[in-house]
Parts: sequence; C-alpha cells; structure tokens
Amino acid sequence: MQHNETLDRTFFALSDPTRRKILERLTDGPATIGELAEPFGLTLNGLKKHVGLLEAVGLVTTEKVGRARECRLGPAQMEEVTSWIDTYRRDWARRLDGFGAFVEERR
Amino acid sequence: MQHNETLDRTFFALSDPTRRKILERLTDGPATIGELAEPFGLTLNGLKKHVGLLEAVGLVTTEKVGRARECRLGPAQMEEVTSWIDTYRRDWARRLDGFGAFVEERR
Repeated sequence: MQHNETLDRTFFALSDPTRRKILERLTDGPATIGELAEPFGLTLNGLKKHVGLLEAVGLVTTEKVGRARECRLGPAQMEEVTSWIDTYRRDWARRLDGFGAFVEERR
Repeated sequence: MQHNETLDRTFFALSDPTRRKILERLTDGPATIGELAEPFGLTLNGLKKHVGLLEAVGLVTTEKVGRARECRLGPAQMEEVTSWIDTYRRDWARRLDGFGAFVEERR
C-alpha cells in the first residue's frame, strides 16, 4: 500500500471528539458555525478551526448564507479509511488461516 | 454517542503512515523492534515510540524474546472505529432518505 495523505488527514480529523460530534450533529441537518459553536462551548474561532480540518478532507462543506456560514456534510464517505481497515483485517485473517493450516499439517 | 477515548486514540494511532505500515508489515507475521526499524529507516527509539502508541490501543502486543522485543498484532480489531463510521453513515443515509421523502411529498 502506498502512502496516502487522505488517509493520514482523515484518520487525524476523526481522532478528535469535538470533530466527531460536529459530524454527528450534521447528520441531523445543516447548521451554521454559530449554531455549532454554542452547544460545544467553543468560540467561533475554535469551532472554525475544527470545521476547517473537516472541510479539508471533504467531510464537511460550508457555504455563506447571508451573514452566516452554513455547514453540512460533505461528499467524503471515508471510503479510503474503511478500505484500508478492510484490507488490513483481510490480510490478517488470511495469515491466521495460513497459520492454522500449517499447524494442521504438522499434526 | 458518548465520548470514547479508545476512539480518539485509535484514530490518532492510525493517522500516521509509519504506524499503518508497521501494522501492514505485522500482518505477514511477528517481527522484532530491530527488524521493523531497519526498513523504515528509523532509530530503535523512534520505532519504539510508534509501537508504544499502537500497543496502548491494543493494535500491537510485544514480548521479550531473548535480548529482542518481538511485536505481533494485538487483539484490537478496530471494532469501535468501524462501528462509529457505520453508525455515522447509517444516520446520514437515514437523513437523506427522510429528505427525499419530504421532497416527494411536496411535489
């Protein structure tokens, strides 16, 4: 597998509980930066930083609506993350199978 | 969903390309710290730090064998990570379905 920066950045974006909560909140529908900041007890700037990180990996998109900035879920579906995990698990399972067969043969 | 530290730490552990490569390498079988450090061009201490992070979330286990420390894949199967992603995707799909029904109704 090659080095994949999307993977680095998406895993990192998801490693923060506030950013995961922002995503969870947005599954209920769009929200402005201000609406998101309040329940998290974050400043607008603090929240903007988190949203910026999520936006950079396509998990969130934002749009200016009047004087507010509206956030909604972006097009990224974390396919690369799940595909990496699936491959890892499959390779591991294959190795365990191979090891089981080896033990069987030696009986 | 509650704050889940395993989730924070597992996503963070996976956000580094060297740590992912260590996991990929270990799907081929156990390796000592020295054997892992060499192909990555890392010092033993640099590698130990990465392995320590993976060990803390159960993705790797290590065992002293003679004078070396052998690493192998640990019991963690990233269930919490995949379960979080699955829930997120399901909630989002449900919302999109609901939105579709709403648009249909108004036609």
